[in-house]
Amino acid sequence: MKLLEDRIRQFGKIGEGNILKVDSFLNHQIDAQLLDEMGREFERLYHEAGVTKILTIEASGIAIAVMAARHFSVPVVFAKKHKTLNIHGDVYVSQVESFTHKTTYDITVSKAFLNEGDKVLIIDDFLATGNAIIGLIDLCRQAGADVIGAGIAVEKAFQEGGKQLRESGLRVESLARIAALSVTDGVSFVED
Amino acid sequence: MKLLEDRIRQFGKIGEGNILKVDSFLNHQIDAQLLDEMGREFERLYHEAGVTKILTIEASGIAIAVMAARHFSVPVVFAKKHKTLNIHGDVYVSQVESFTHKTTYDITVSKAFLNEGDKVLIIDDFLATGNAIIGLIDLCRQAGADVIGAGIAVEKAFQEGGKQLRESGLRVESLARIAALSVTDGVSFVED
Repeated sequence: MKLLEDRIRQFGKIGEGNILKVDSFLNHQIDAQLLDEMGREFERLYHEAGVTKILTIEASGIAIAVMAARHFSVPVVFAKKHKTLNIHGDVYVSQVESFTHKTTYDITVSKAFLNEGDKVLIIDDFLATGNAIIGLIDLCRQAGADVIGAGIAVEKAFQEGGKQLRESGLRVESLARIAALSVTDGVSFVED
Repeated sequence: MKLLEDRIRQFGKIGEGNILKVDSFLNHQIDAQLLDEMGREFERLYHEAGVTKILTIEASGIAIAVMAARHFSVPVVFAKKHKTLNIHGDVYVSQVESFTHKTTYDITVSKAFLNEGDKVLIIDDFLATGNAIIGLIDLCRQAGADVIGAGIAVEKAFQEGGKQLRESGLRVESLARIAALSVTDGVSFVED
């Protein structure tokens, strides 16, 4: 999606260790108009897929997912993150390993909001190792819901997550696919 | 706002201790169409106020704030919550006491995204003690930004937060103002 790629080129900040900061428009300060266009694009891509629910993960996935949900006219559910195992109540639980923070955390969704028969589109802001997406897929599996695919804002295509998810048979649509990040040379995108 | 009050009457769940659960449409599963209408209403209420930025707090404020930001055509910034004091970098920090969880946590906003001259509308899903709003106002004060007012989805008007904020001179607009909650008698709203 050219609009997002241009924004990343212009305002993305690259740090050591393949870090890309997009916090001026995507995940701290948020450009709602940009996200609205991204939501429109996800709906165009998955228009024929019969999506009944959008699933994301707090916190930075929420804004993109709720904008997409507006275009799909379906509810969005966000999985909650927990640092402790002290979880009670009627929730599905899965574990996610955080590459960035070198920790493992739990994600939960209330059983009331993820059901057999749901056709779920998973939306998130970043895809790198794919661990968060795998955790969300696991929550859907526990609920007996079908996962239609994933809609990602920014994929770090030089990491393995996207490749592995696609090889597992999942449809993955990323609006910007980053081929390489360099403090000196900037960002380059995968050519479609 | 009748649309929101009706939804709370129909789908809100009341628990012991004045707990109102709205997680089927507002803060776990989210009805994007409802939030879009709420965003439109905030824009109508603050249309003449010259809002340049919307400020909210993760996680459940994000969805409402980003929908409002679409109607205002301004950026939204969300403050991050931290359990530890181990905060570094160029951020404004304030402390918030959580009535629900009986703990104190820090909230931060990057200094890059809150500036002198900003006219800030604070948006959040709930207003009870008002502590979160007071923390967000403090972040704005540190940045030299003006706070135009607050836009709240659900105000527990039987608690003191809204009263105290209004007495301090802050404009507070709540789309649903709850007068009383009772497991046996249900929910009643403040009559306008």
